[in-house]
Amino acid sequence: MLYYIPILLALIPQTLALWPIPRTLQTGSTFLVLSSQFNINVNVPNPPQDLLDAVSQTKDFLATDKLQRLVIGRGAADAGALKTAKTLPSLTVTMQSNQPVLPIAAESVKDIGTRSEGYTLSIPNDGRPAVLSANSTLGLFRGLTTFSQFWYDLNGVTYTNVSPVSIVKDVPAYPYRGLMLDTSRNFFPVADIKRTLDAMSWVKINTFHWHIVDSQSFPLFLPEFPELAGKGAYSSSQIYSPADVQSIVSYAAAHGIDVVMEIDSPGHTAIIAESHPEHVACNQASPWSTFANEPPAGQLRLATPGTVNFSAALFTAAARVLPSKLFSTGGDELNTQCYKSDAQTQADLKKSGQTLEQALNSFTQATHGALAKLGKTPVVWEEMVLDHSPKLSNNTVVMVWISSANAAAVAAKNFRFVHAPSDFFYLDCGAGEWIGKSAESNSWCDPFKSWQKAYTFNPLANISAAQKHLVLGGQQLLWTEQSDPNNLDPIVWPRAATSAEIFWTGATRPDGKALDGSEALPRLHEMRYRMVQRGVKAIALQPQWCALRPGLCNVDS
Amino acid sequence: MLYYIPILLALIPQTLALWPIPRTLQTGSTFLVLSSQFNINVNVPNPPQDLLDAVSQTKDFLATDKLQRLVIGRGAADAGALKTAKTLPSLTVTMQSNQPVLPIAAESVKDIGTRSEGYTLSIPNDGRPAVLSANSTLGLFRGLTTFSQFWYDLNGVTYTNVSPVSIVKDVPAYPYRGLMLDTSRNFFPVADIKRTLDAMSWVKINTFHWHIVDSQSFPLFLPEFPELAGKGAYSSSQIYSPADVQSIVSYAAAHGIDVVMEIDSPGHTAIIAESHPEHVACNQASPWSTFANEPPAGQLRLATPGTVNFSAALFTAAARVLPSKLFSTGGDELNTQCYKSDAQTQADLKKSGQTLEQALNSFTQATHGALAKLGKTPVVWEEMVLDHSPKLSNNTVVMVWISSANAAAVAAKNFRFVHAPSDFFYLDCGAGEWIGKSAESNSWCDPFKSWQKAYTFNPLANISAAQKHLVLGGQQLLWTEQSDPNNLDPIVWPRAATSAEIFWTGATRPDGKALDGSEALPRLHEMRYRMVQRGVKAIALQPQWCALRPGLCNVDS
Repeated sequence: MLYYIPILLALIPQTLALWPIPRTLQTGSTFLVLSSQFNINVNVPNPPQDLLDAVSQTKDFLATDKLQRLVIGRGAADAGALKTAKTLPSLTVTMQSNQPVLPIAAESVKDIGTRSEGYTLSIPNDGRPAVLSANSTLGLFRGLTTFSQFWYDLNGVTYTNVSPVSIVKDVPAYPYRGLMLDTSRNFFPVADIKRTLDAMSWVKINTFHWHIVDSQSFPLFLPEFPELAGKGAYSSSQIYSPADVQSIVSYAAAHGIDVVMEIDSPGHTAIIAESHPEHVACNQASPWSTFANEPPAGQLRLATPGTVNFSAALFTAAARVLPSKLFSTGGDELNTQCYKSDAQTQADLKKSGQTLEQALNSFTQATHGALAKLGKTPVVWEEMVLDHSPKLSNNTVVMVWISSANAAAVAAKNFRFVHAPSDFFYLDCGAGEWIGKSAESNSWCDPFKSWQKAYTFNPLANISAAQKHLVLGGQQLLWTEQSDPNNLDPIVWPRAATSAEIFWTGATRPDGKALDGSEALPRLHEMRYRMVQRGVKAIALQPQWCALRPGLCNVDS
Repeated sequence: MLYYIPILLALIPQTLALWPIPRTLQTGSTFLVLSSQFNINVNVPNPPQDLLDAVSQTKDFLATDKLQRLVIGRGAADAGALKTAKTLPSLTVTMQSNQPVLPIAAESVKDIGTRSEGYTLSIPNDGRPAVLSANSTLGLFRGLTTFSQFWYDLNGVTYTNVSPVSIVKDVPAYPYRGLMLDTSRNFFPVADIKRTLDAMSWVKINTFHWHIVDSQSFPLFLPEFPELAGKGAYSSSQIYSPADVQSIVSYAAAHGIDVVMEIDSPGHTAIIAESHPEHVACNQASPWSTFANEPPAGQLRLATPGTVNFSAALFTAAARVLPSKLFSTGGDELNTQCYKSDAQTQADLKKSGQTLEQALNSFTQATHGALAKLGKTPVVWEEMVLDHSPKLSNNTVVMVWISSANAAAVAAKNFRFVHAPSDFFYLDCGAGEWIGKSAESNSWCDPFKSWQKAYTFNPLANISAAQKHLVLGGQQLLWTEQSDPNNLDPIVWPRAATSAEIFWTGATRPDGKALDGSEALPRLHEMRYRMVQRGVKAIALQPQWCALRPGLCNVDS
């Protein structure tokens, strides 16, 4: 196989619109214009439709992004160089292996750690075509994403200023790069979720952690349990039908994203009482702060045999509609006072002779057992291993959220885990208190987690070399007590791109230097301006004056 | 004149969609349906077009708001009552005085303190028409705004549940109720500003403080100084043309809003150096933090005669295109180190024998003198009276921003002032540091100023009875280092409605009780849901579960 061999390529130039930055990258400093007849040739046997769609989408982006360079004059000074620049005629997309060609959607939902996301890309500037190759259609999808980020527009001319380009085997540092969205506190229509999936795919996020239900609403319609959404959704128009879920899952998979659904349990389940009061302890008990971390109180009666069976059946019903190998049973913020005050739970414990922890173990065996029957791996919040002691299968994935420092304790218990720390990655922090009758301006997890703060996250802090394999990756998270479709884009983007880079690129940039916010800022500006061009309302990180003058708005510059 | 006389009206019921709440209000608890032939009869001689437009807009809102009640079931339980409810056939709009009828636009830009914004509204529930009367078209506009907020939708039926209604002379507590937008750090197209003006009018905000230029960009095109925007705007498409300014000013005035423009000076003017380097000291001097509060550094050479003349001519050119009696010359964050380091300034000071403060006084006499010639009253930031000592005319309006506590010091100097305190009303706070090379999550004015915090603001704190007349009102403010059209709506709304109520309603609600966040929250939910229905992307204040259950998400409820 032939690759373009760079001879005298500079290391990364000052501006570069790539995000996440590839792990290997050589670029030049020559201008190269995209041919007006530019085409993408798919040299893949029996190419699956979603690959052809991705190619088509890439061509659309090349035509419609129209991102002007973020420099004074917006690239006007490039006009002269463009007149004499060489032209790139086409991109050839090809498979490196003789493996059967599967759709992107099939590759995206393979078990974590077994997906092939790497690709190799060369963009010569001598008139030859660019070449993208990979071992899988998913790898090709990642490469197309990278390819689309090289291009600027000046008066209708599409060009790059960093040719030639050589990226040899850009593969992600971590297999799990996620984003969590809570669709229970407030509802998000399918279109908002798909737009979010689009933006996720642009920065190579590969997991949508869908916290679909919680104590406030149950928008998931399950044919086996129609009453849950029927009485627990905010309204009949604020429901995810089976077709909606399939539509989201399919759309995600075709965009390189696995959907990991969560039905949080046994806490965070008050809304189930609307249809099944028999299964819920301390439903809307007052004051809520005694029985839950936020209103309304209500937890599944984990010691009640009927509720255990119901819960297992619920997980079966939900998990079987998703192709993902992962499914989250939640497990955060279990409130023991709720169970102490619940006569039914106390009676059931007495009857079975179990302690609450023993009952939690039985409940977990039932729910995780239901998942195991479907071939699914359970995901749990950190409390299930740090604060409680249910017996968990060795392959259980743990989400570390309370503090980044807790990752070490989870690793010490030899569980694989995902970094989801509130002190770095919670997108909702810093927006003020939402509980009524409080005049506080502070939120529970102040301050706001800026992109700069998130970008300093070190996935391997306090993790020994022997434990590195336990670090699956990480994600930023949006809890939606104070969010709905009206502020979804600006509260998520471009901040959520920071973890995407940390977990794709790893600790070091292709020039061997450590990830560094001041190097990243101009690239993140470019990515956010591109997102805006593509219809995602990502916030401005700085005055445009600063975006056009990299470095001049740094501390003491 | 006949008003509907309430006999047994309850005091304010639990849910009420009015914002700001009228100063006098009596409501019943009877359902009343808007007739499907409902009309608004304008009983005004020679009604001006903007009044007719406002009537037409009100009818549109009644038809399109379709706000469902924020209760469990979204008003479904009202169906029975609606079947037997009386019908409101029409609203009659009438003038109380024999004064000449002026357009709303003319009334809106009258000098502060002389506008007639009050109105009287009765909505009987015995089949008679509702009646809205006022002394001016501006008052009628305010009354139409209130009228439009009473109505809910259930399956296409438009109704209220609080009839009959009597509001006798609802007049604002303070004459200045503003919102400031910075269009320099990042640019906002005309459509975004008009949408913001719409939302402002819905909560009876009457002043748009337009911080149009600053050190980062100069988007204001002035025919006398085409080079300022020509070289100082971010691009040729990020300019407010004279037609744009007129369009915004006219739109604002027709919606009850006076546009107070600010050209901040002599600081915050670095961008003028792009076209007039001769007028700017310490242009982009490094490190910027020595010479300015944020990058880039640059201040007008206040001691240089040519620059003084230029500045006066600039204010003349800008101020004369606006009908407002107010115009702001800025005056915040003057950096003395900038002038100390500027050889030109030092030479000019030496030549004139002036100190820097004396030169500032001369500069101010020239710029304020230019405004005086146009019959305009200057507005300045607090530093011009608290930190410096230029001679200011007695009618100068001072903006108190550094701390709410500084209002007392401004009052002690006997200046009229506007509350714009960063510790309550700055909408940008709490979004993290935007200066590059900083990994801080904190912003300079943390924490986020929640609506709850803003709502606790007391306009008369530390103000004596004899000084009350100096308190013109107040405003919330959006500085846009980290904002642009992508997050304009969610960062402003509904938070900016809090000051609108504080300065319309004053210290007490119509039931005589003090303004209180827990009473306000359900109304603010209603207002924000209505804003969303009208196309403004206001954020969710709480999970919808809480919005539907007033009080249940309070502390310890």
